[in-house]
Amino acid sequence: MIRLSRSVLRLPAATVRCYAQTAEPAKKDGATEAQSQKQVESRSFAVGMFSGFIHTEQVFPYPSVLSEDQSQFLSELVGPVSRFFQEVNNPMLNDDLQRVDDKTMAGLKELGAFGLQVPADLGGMGLNNTQYARLVEIVGLHDLGVGITLGAHQSIGFKGILLYGTEEQKKKYLPRLASGETIAAFCLTEPSSGSDAASIRTTAKKSPCGSFYTLTGGKLWISNGGIADLFTVFAKTQIPDPSSGEIKEKITAFIVERGEGVSHGPPDKKLGIRASNTAALHFDEVRVPAENVLGGEGNGFKVAMNILNNGRFGMAAALSGTMKGMIQRAVDHATNRTQFGSKLHTFGVIQEKLARMAVLQYVTESMAYMISANMDSGAKDFQIEAAISKIFGSEAAWMVTDECIQILGGTGFMKDGGVERVLRDLRIFRIFEGTNDILRLFVSLNGLQSAGKELKSLQKAISSPLGNPQLLLKEGLRRARRRAGLGTGLTLKGHVHSEVEKSAELAVGALEDFGLVVEEVLIKYGKRIVDEQFILHRIADAAIDLYAMIVVLSRSSRSLSHGLPTAVHEKILCDIWCAEAAERVHRNLKSLRSGGGGSSLFRNLRSVSSALVENGGVVASHPLGL
Amino acid sequence: MIRLSRSVLRLPAATVRCYAQTAEPAKKDGATEAQSQKQVESRSFAVGMFSGFIHTEQVFPYPSVLSEDQSQFLSELVGPVSRFFQEVNNPMLNDDLQRVDDKTMAGLKELGAFGLQVPADLGGMGLNNTQYARLVEIVGLHDLGVGITLGAHQSIGFKGILLYGTEEQKKKYLPRLASGETIAAFCLTEPSSGSDAASIRTTAKKSPCGSFYTLTGGKLWISNGGIADLFTVFAKTQIPDPSSGEIKEKITAFIVERGEGVSHGPPDKKLGIRASNTAALHFDEVRVPAENVLGGEGNGFKVAMNILNNGRFGMAAALSGTMKGMIQRAVDHATNRTQFGSKLHTFGVIQEKLARMAVLQYVTESMAYMISANMDSGAKDFQIEAAISKIFGSEAAWMVTDECIQILGGTGFMKDGGVERVLRDLRIFRIFEGTNDILRLFVSLNGLQSAGKELKSLQKAISSPLGNPQLLLKEGLRRARRRAGLGTGLTLKGHVHSEVEKSAELAVGALEDFGLVVEEVLIKYGKRIVDEQFILHRIADAAIDLYAMIVVLSRSSRSLSHGLPTAVHEKILCDIWCAEAAERVHRNLKSLRSGGGGSSLFRNLRSVSSALVENGGVVASHPLGL
Repeated sequence: MIRLSRSVLRLPAATVRCYAQTAEPAKKDGATEAQSQKQVESRSFAVGMFSGFIHTEQVFPYPSVLSEDQSQFLSELVGPVSRFFQEVNNPMLNDDLQRVDDKTMAGLKELGAFGLQVPADLGGMGLNNTQYARLVEIVGLHDLGVGITLGAHQSIGFKGILLYGTEEQKKKYLPRLASGETIAAFCLTEPSSGSDAASIRTTAKKSPCGSFYTLTGGKLWISNGGIADLFTVFAKTQIPDPSSGEIKEKITAFIVERGEGVSHGPPDKKLGIRASNTAALHFDEVRVPAENVLGGEGNGFKVAMNILNNGRFGMAAALSGTMKGMIQRAVDHATNRTQFGSKLHTFGVIQEKLARMAVLQYVTESMAYMISANMDSGAKDFQIEAAISKIFGSEAAWMVTDECIQILGGTGFMKDGGVERVLRDLRIFRIFEGTNDILRLFVSLNGLQSAGKELKSLQKAISSPLGNPQLLLKEGLRRARRRAGLGTGLTLKGHVHSEVEKSAELAVGALEDFGLVVEEVLIKYGKRIVDEQFILHRIADAAIDLYAMIVVLSRSSRSLSHGLPTAVHEKILCDIWCAEAAERVHRNLKSLRSGGGGSSLFRNLRSVSSALVENGGVVASHPLGL
Repeated sequence: MIRLSRSVLRLPAATVRCYAQTAEPAKKDGATEAQSQKQVESRSFAVGMFSGFIHTEQVFPYPSVLSEDQSQFLSELVGPVSRFFQEVNNPMLNDDLQRVDDKTMAGLKELGAFGLQVPADLGGMGLNNTQYARLVEIVGLHDLGVGITLGAHQSIGFKGILLYGTEEQKKKYLPRLASGETIAAFCLTEPSSGSDAASIRTTAKKSPCGSFYTLTGGKLWISNGGIADLFTVFAKTQIPDPSSGEIKEKITAFIVERGEGVSHGPPDKKLGIRASNTAALHFDEVRVPAENVLGGEGNGFKVAMNILNNGRFGMAAALSGTMKGMIQRAVDHATNRTQFGSKLHTFGVIQEKLARMAVLQYVTESMAYMISANMDSGAKDFQIEAAISKIFGSEAAWMVTDECIQILGGTGFMKDGGVERVLRDLRIFRIFEGTNDILRLFVSLNGLQSAGKELKSLQKAISSPLGNPQLLLKEGLRRARRRAGLGTGLTLKGHVHSEVEKSAELAVGALEDFGLVVEEVLIKYGKRIVDEQFILHRIADAAIDLYAMIVVLSRSSRSLSHGLPTAVHEKILCDIWCAEAAERVHRNLKSLRSGGGGSSLFRNLRSVSSALVENGGVVASHPLGL
């Protein structure tokens, strides 16, 4: 487990307040079952790669976690859910209505779609993360507006009760949430608090008797805000330090039922996901019983971040479904449309688009089910991977859909074509539940923290060789080799199928480069790295590419080993991705090395931005002088 | 002038039918003034660079074409037009109404906005292309829906009359078009004919007496289709060959007035530019007088392509205005919004976004006014440059607006934020008036044609040295040096300001690489290059980057030489662009060299695409097996 707050780097800047707290282990938070699991050493692949290690156990072989029963149960659900979306749901109607049509809502409730991960004994479907992913993939394929309605309810709206709820809270709320009788919403964002979630102003004052809190404040852009009757609300609370008695302001999560003092604004008008309700909420001196505190007083920030961390793989799964649908539309058009005397798919430009769409979908899908499997296997350290999957999935789906529109041409731009809605729906995925920019910082800062700790131990060992001679020997040699460009002995041989060994070598080369640059950067900047966003952004991009290489190497290797009929195709998808991603990683990293051109570029970018801010917009004189 | 149809390469494939005809000189088409200008040797920079030359006359120094009077007149227009858009026009209202509000329409007519380039003696404003560009920039800044309404009218709707109309046609139609009393539309696209414009099925049968044609057919997605009363319609006509008497089917352009037999469908519902009317049109045995043939019988394809070629710079100008608006919005937000205790603009991630937005706007603006100036100076050979500006502008504006939304976060996604509409409006710009994919092929095929001709002369000279010893000497040495990596003696010294000389060297290096690869590709593929779209696409990307480098080198040099207060800022914009563009050019070109990895990548892409088409969508087995 990464312990950011006590890390050797002690990242202090306000900019990383949220990350610093984000990765705190859930297990520290309280009394519930979910949190009492034994801590194991972090062997996250993503964490390891920042220190130049290849931790294979989470990623090789590509995990399969479903038991035969679980697989059987899931297969019985896939058909009906797919049919429901094909036959009952009408995404264009929902979009026009700016809500999910009643018939669909009723049908979804009947299907059990509102309680997919609620334990069966509390009225839910009892699905694990992998099974859940497979079903939201279907939802994503058909209607992201419905997806957000369902996701805002169970992926974040009441996920806190699943993760942190007491037995009483679970018994009281989960049955009616699972049935869809009660809809839930997650209330974090405020007008002055978006990415900086820790800066919320909503307050909850404890009554003198301690039996209730009085909650007051406004929340913004709340999915399901206008239709929910149960809210997970985050508010500032005054908490006395048990030792000093000093009062500290800390965030606490509350389960709030709709009632006196709770009101909402009209549905927000949005670019996309119009079928899902979004509204401002106002809590005006709402009385919340003390037993509705969720995850312990003062732990609200961690509760919020862990809810979000736990939901991200689902977004990747849903968007992998969306991409599948878009690829099908594009292929259909390319197969049937003739221009210049030939079908569109015979043109290289179209072939390249289709192939790249397939690669992006393959990567996203491989990430989603890798992470869901890791989570189902009890891994606790999946924050970096989950963040990567959300970033990657949301950007990949955007590109795939954008290219689908390009292939469809005018049809893609027209409402009747049904694709323009998907593009509109997708735009918010790069913004909400952690903007991709913030998540990139999250990825690199989390990784750097861990690597920094590693490095610090090494430095200690060097200054006092008797302290840990073995570590010194092993690490010293590895680092010396890496600096000399000799390779570090890192290898994926034995883990990947021989057919993708060449791509694996590219990945290993990129990983070596990455480890080296991370080390250089840490040595050069120390804790000041937190303010170097130009660098952090590039490190995150490299990390995303690296993890993406590993997931497709793993998945295609499994397919090759199992002799699947699509294995050769998957190998090609893997090869295309690895060749380009490895090159991109080296390029990204090069700019971070001294002499790599990065520092002058960053200085130039900063200078342009300052001038724009000073001028309130474009600075350059108009070429006509007027 | 490039003569594609007689070129040494004789590009035969159906895929290039349109390009082959596109670049035919307008001057051959007929009797009007606009076409009688003396032909001068092509010295287009873009054409030259394909042969490894730097033709500087169109690009250095950055052109200034407005006379004092023209400048004065323009400056008197800029204020009122800007105020009109700030005070009268309401883009959100237009978007909601799905038409331009009546008050705005009336005001635009009063302003003279419907006849910007119609000669003053025919009731128009008599603006040249540069003046026109400046005004559409304002329109683009405020409302692209209005922009399309105006552009569909005058940039393409009746542009044919301006370019090819007889005196009678001009006198008859231009006054009421200029006043906006009559709205025009350009009718080329059909259900089965989009990018492949030559494949239209609408027919015009000549009456036996020869005095009229009977026009029948359907047109699709016609901007202003439902509100126009005058149409430039393209239809197939049967034309006897003057020598052989053989009947050939050729396209002819007609001026068609709304009347019996002309009908239109309901307004199409679209992702964006909703304010502009789009509709299908049907011509059912419409009688068109013979004197309404535009540009000569059988010349319709050239008329269509030249109208489009002549309008493209305007799109770049409009979109440069759009970007300016988006940058202002983003800067405003970054300056006023606080998160993590600091204004957004203090964060590196935001600085990088803002700076890149400014660079893209600067490039686009520099292209738009470079090209409009070239056109106003009588250059006839601006097709490649115009296509580049349309591609670049539409993609840059998309990226800038997308990033503006990302900076604004949730506000960017909300209707009230006013930015989501801009993103919706922009999507069609990469599709209409030549999709960017088709235009990329246009750019590279036009350039390669010219280079091929050049190369053929050289080859002749080599096989018969006495034929053109000077050419051989000069070219032979240049090519030999280039192959040896010694540089070709190409330089921009003396043309660029010393402050940007380093960037100019990067551009020259990229130009040298480009010329060499073009030569290699031509020698390797010969005329088969027309079917190598993977290669053509990359050559086009390199060409776009190269031209973009040249325009910003030129513009920043002028600003530096004139000692403008913004010159240093412009130099930095130029440096940022050139550093990255040069690297991208080398990368793009490397993949086209033998051993550069291109051929295996292209094989892989093709293989993936084939499998998708065969399978009707995603091929890879699901990771869960179900």
